[in-house]
Amino acid sequence: MPYNELRKDYLLDRWVVIATERSRRPTDFAKPKSEAAKTAVCPMCVGNENMTPPAIMLYQKENGEIKRSQDPLTGERPKNWLVRVIPNLYPAFSPPKQPEDIAQILKSECLRDAIGHHEVIIESPNHDEDPADAEFPQLELVINAYIDRLKELSAKPYVKYVSIFRNYGLEAGASLSHAHSQVIATPMVPTTIQEELNSSKTFYDAYGKCVFCDIIERETKGPRLISEDEDFAVLAPYASINPMEFWIIPKKHAPNILNLTPPEIAAFAKILKVSLKALKDLVNDPPYNYGFHLAINSDAQDSYHWHLEVYPKLAIWAGFEKSTGVYINTVTPETAAESLRKSIKP
Amino acid sequence: MPYNELRKDYLLDRWVVIATERSRRPTDFAKPKSEAAKTAVCPMCVGNENMTPPAIMLYQKENGEIKRSQDPLTGERPKNWLVRVIPNLYPAFSPPKQPEDIAQILKSECLRDAIGHHEVIIESPNHDEDPADAEFPQLELVINAYIDRLKELSAKPYVKYVSIFRNYGLEAGASLSHAHSQVIATPMVPTTIQEELNSSKTFYDAYGKCVFCDIIERETKGPRLISEDEDFAVLAPYASINPMEFWIIPKKHAPNILNLTPPEIAAFAKILKVSLKALKDLVNDPPYNYGFHLAINSDAQDSYHWHLEVYPKLAIWAGFEKSTGVYINTVTPETAAESLRKSIKP
Repeated sequence: MPYNELRKDYLLDRWVVIATERSRRPTDFAKPKSEAAKTAVCPMCVGNENMTPPAIMLYQKENGEIKRSQDPLTGERPKNWLVRVIPNLYPAFSPPKQPEDIAQILKSECLRDAIGHHEVIIESPNHDEDPADAEFPQLELVINAYIDRLKELSAKPYVKYVSIFRNYGLEAGASLSHAHSQVIATPMVPTTIQEELNSSKTFYDAYGKCVFCDIIERETKGPRLISEDEDFAVLAPYASINPMEFWIIPKKHAPNILNLTPPEIAAFAKILKVSLKALKDLVNDPPYNYGFHLAINSDAQDSYHWHLEVYPKLAIWAGFEKSTGVYINTVTPETAAESLRKSIKP
Repeated sequence: MPYNELRKDYLLDRWVVIATERSRRPTDFAKPKSEAAKTAVCPMCVGNENMTPPAIMLYQKENGEIKRSQDPLTGERPKNWLVRVIPNLYPAFSPPKQPEDIAQILKSECLRDAIGHHEVIIESPNHDEDPADAEFPQLELVINAYIDRLKELSAKPYVKYVSIFRNYGLEAGASLSHAHSQVIATPMVPTTIQEELNSSKTFYDAYGKCVFCDIIERETKGPRLISEDEDFAVLAPYASINPMEFWIIPKKHAPNILNLTPPEIAAFAKILKVSLKALKDLVNDPPYNYGFHLAINSDAQDSYHWHLEVYPKLAIWAGFEKSTGVYINTVTPETAAESLRKSIKP
């Protein structure tokens, strides 16, 4: 019996024990479907627009065209929306209350004002239209909304990063079950992203190429590839810290999603849906989180490469992980890739 | 309304949003007691010693004295034990199978053999004798067992760190409900600990004093102090990433627990029990993890200072935390300290 493997992340100084000795099959994680978050009335469903703050951004269909607007200042709330973006009622980061506040964000070396933005993207008028089951035109609108919010928020002078993420299922932190994503714009580059920016810059300076382009080249030939098409590769990363974790990486080098073309958006919608559906079918609709990793600073243009990381919530990080920063994963990424590959519907 | 605060950890480059705008009271987290992990027969209870591997270490009482031994090689399993240490049945790290393996741990920059140790400390013959409710002599034995295991494991040439931790409650990762802790010895210093070692060394070199001694001096005068006695301070750290998180820090500078005296062990048992009981009473017996942070390398003797970090499991880290490494905590450490202070039984 060989030893368990201690693997290091492609970029982060983060180690994981790939526990082959206690290895579990992906289907071992299948649980009876957990209860959805309960609300008497869903504040995100059509007709309940008055239960939420006015929309910052709305997509509506008019004469066959998608129109972008926002809730009118008159207090009306249109009901014919397709995607609706609202401020989070309990924001972690809030917009500056007055322009002077921006210059005073830094209070000390250890304290800053949490100035920024925290938004909720209601992905569909249909309560259950999550990406794994979404219609393609709708899912493309959601991705468009990600791009539109990134464009608007990243242009603000006090915004240094924009995190676009999705929580699915109560156990993954989704307190409302209506299909939605969140956007948080922060006044600093977050730790994990900064470490990735630094490492990828170091790699670029040493080898004259993007580390993610290199990862795609190597991983698409190996046992951790889940799926690929002309535009994207889906792979189980070498040092996955979550059972069944996978990343969707665009083959075309770009630091972020701002310049995706309509065909690329369509291709991303397709591979996102297909991958999440494969996970859903394989492990009985598990909770998950996903988050975009991207760069908005111009000096990362050549060295950083956006991608989406999907973290199924199938294990609990306990005392060891929390106090050491070292993880234990009981499903090898090779097993995860193989089983997700087989679960993909053509 | 002021902004939420972005606070940085004392040592780590880790930021947390202290969400005063969505602030919750500690008692908001009280939930109906979650089900304990179920097993038909508890393999850790007295009489079931044959369901587990032979004990590596046993404490037994003989003629009023505590005797340290191990399960005999003859296959017998004494039943008159007080604390029983066994190898984990599904070890994340395993001992070297042959001496040559030690020299070959490093396979590449990104791959190592997970050589080390993974043990379970059965804390009491009584199923429910968790620290919050333990008898003091028993809890002192548990702390003695921590010290004994640290002494033995840290002396091995391939062991670079020993993590001693405890998971309590199914939601905090305790798959068995019998009172137990775990010990993992690793062939490298874990990321989080290494970052703490580096930062505390930098502080020591700059100011000629230990950063934790400095923290104790400052925090025992302020609103985050929960409790203190001659030997220990209990405080809610400035940048807690968990609601109700608290640390127990010894006032006497020491890099680890190896040289604790019997009176210090008794004092630690007391403050550990009292603090965990205050948490249990306040939030209806919540799940938690705790982990020792310590140093076993001699060059950290002056700069690092051991302590115990307790992480109540009251929130879910979701897509934002997992993809950025920035946390959101909806209970201010000042509120946590105040309510734990009031919950302490004299």
